[in-house]
Amino acid sequence: MARVAIIGTGFIGRAWAISYARAGHDIVLWDADASAPAAALDYVEGVLPELAANDLLNGAEPATVRGRMSAEANLGEVLKDVDHVQENTPEDVEIKKTVFAMLDEAAPASAILASSTSALLPSSFTEHLKGRARCLVVHPINPPYLVPAVEVVPAPWTSEEAMTKAAAFMRSAGHAPIVMKKELDGFVMNRMQGALLEEAFRLVASGYATVEDVDIGIREGLALRWSFMGPFETIDLNAPGGVRDYVERYQSIYSRIHPSMRDRVDWAGDVLKDVEADRRRALPAERLKDRQVWRDRRLMALAAHKRRADTDIGK
Amino acid sequence: MARVAIIGTGFIGRAWAISYARAGHDIVLWDADASAPAAALDYVEGVLPELAANDLLNGAEPATVRGRMSAEANLGEVLKDVDHVQENTPEDVEIKKTVFAMLDEAAPASAILASSTSALLPSSFTEHLKGRARCLVVHPINPPYLVPAVEVVPAPWTSEEAMTKAAAFMRSAGHAPIVMKKELDGFVMNRMQGALLEEAFRLVASGYATVEDVDIGIREGLALRWSFMGPFETIDLNAPGGVRDYVERYQSIYSRIHPSMRDRVDWAGDVLKDVEADRRRALPAERLKDRQVWRDRRLMALAAHKRRADTDIGK
Repeated sequence: MARVAIIGTGFIGRAWAISYARAGHDIVLWDADASAPAAALDYVEGVLPELAANDLLNGAEPATVRGRMSAEANLGEVLKDVDHVQENTPEDVEIKKTVFAMLDEAAPASAILASSTSALLPSSFTEHLKGRARCLVVHPINPPYLVPAVEVVPAPWTSEEAMTKAAAFMRSAGHAPIVMKKELDGFVMNRMQGALLEEAFRLVASGYATVEDVDIGIREGLALRWSFMGPFETIDLNAPGGVRDYVERYQSIYSRIHPSMRDRVDWAGDVLKDVEADRRRALPAERLKDRQVWRDRRLMALAAHKRRADTDIGK
Repeated sequence: MARVAIIGTGFIGRAWAISYARAGHDIVLWDADASAPAAALDYVEGVLPELAANDLLNGAEPATVRGRMSAEANLGEVLKDVDHVQENTPEDVEIKKTVFAMLDEAAPASAILASSTSALLPSSFTEHLKGRARCLVVHPINPPYLVPAVEVVPAPWTSEEAMTKAAAFMRSAGHAPIVMKKELDGFVMNRMQGALLEEAFRLVASGYATVEDVDIGIREGLALRWSFMGPFETIDLNAPGGVRDYVERYQSIYSRIHPSMRDRVDWAGDVLKDVEADRRRALPAERLKDRQVWRDRRLMALAAHKRRADTDIGK
């Protein structure tokens, strides 16, 4: 059982608290706004019963998981004897620099200092710290208590030991860490999401397909297999001789298409009018919030399904 | 109830037969190899009970669905009074030209002639046919009885009426048609798969991530939401003000990344050694076939889950 500090208790921080507490760890929440942790814990109390109903609390009662969390206003107290710090402050490099300087100063030398940033490279806010070898990024997809994948990203000076420790800690909390070999803008997941979105915007901008057509192609098509195999295993199973056979048979199709993918369309240009009009027809703005609740329910049901299928059919 | 001819009864043709028969249609199977339809029907008989067990036969008994299919060696008989022809012969433009000439000659003028091709544009094999206005592509992801998305693609001379009729027919069979406005190499789905794979191969080739890291990022990350929302709805719900707000907040990240996505890596180059080594470590070649069976079971369980979630939580 580890002691985990959550620094910044907005949507990402509170979600991390659930994920780590479910794994049995002791969680302390801290925020620059002293009233924020209490609001975060209220939110957590609303989520835990739904997770229990979907058998996503490792068999624990909601109250037991909630009992592993506490709020603390004094940062020195928060960081005392801490094993893992998960930082979730705004995506501003100056703020991160200030926060990481405080964390590095006060946390025990053995603690891992992990940032949840999606947009900043770890080298951009840890270079001048004494303990920079234990600083890294652990980037989740929200909410981490429903999405196992996390990116563990080193700065050039992050130690192997810190990377190994962070990855092992994530695995022990039920996460699936992507352990990057070196930092890269967009990490892995935003780069892959970006690649897909660039083509999606291009298809709509050039009038070949609608927004809904693109979503159908993924939601009722490609992402079904991707959701339990990923793209490499998918192509490995899509030719009798595996991935080499697939590449030999089909690369020519993809290389023929690629030149038309080299230029990007400005997402904020004319295409955005069409994209927004299509989306607002499908979902009026006033229903966005309800739809987010729906999304989280679907995601929870899918997580429960995948867990059952892993057991019944195999991983 | 329509009469459907399946022309070519390999893996795609036999899977279409299941999809159309499940929808209540009468199916006639034909193949240039006269022994092939019987083998296809044997295969179908193996699949139907599993579909029934997952409640994926619209409540019908396997024997009832099987009873809607028959094999016929005489092509004239096959095409008599047919409403929809689904062609699944090899991906060779000369073969398609010959087959479509025969089909156009013998099928009633009211019948839709649909090719399952993934690699050829419909204009490349239908231009000189008298009935070219009723020729189009209906491209599935295999197997269509588990994957709703299909691409309906016109040649420049395909009539609006034929497109509307084909799309309606697909919807009535439980499919989700992507109705393309004009033909395009790779259609929609292979283009999106290509965009993702290009980045996946680049990440592995440049040493940032392993094959398994990429698959984790999709299978335990991005594709969870994509599997019930698609990429546009995903970003629409990922900013408080919807898709416009998302683009305003985050496009700069993606446009910054894009220049490093302009050049493609040769998938068959050095990277393939690493990709193949990683895949064969994860799954030895002699287990590829077993894993394909696993994949189809997982896909079936996911289809059943999605159907339940559509009802219980909403679509």
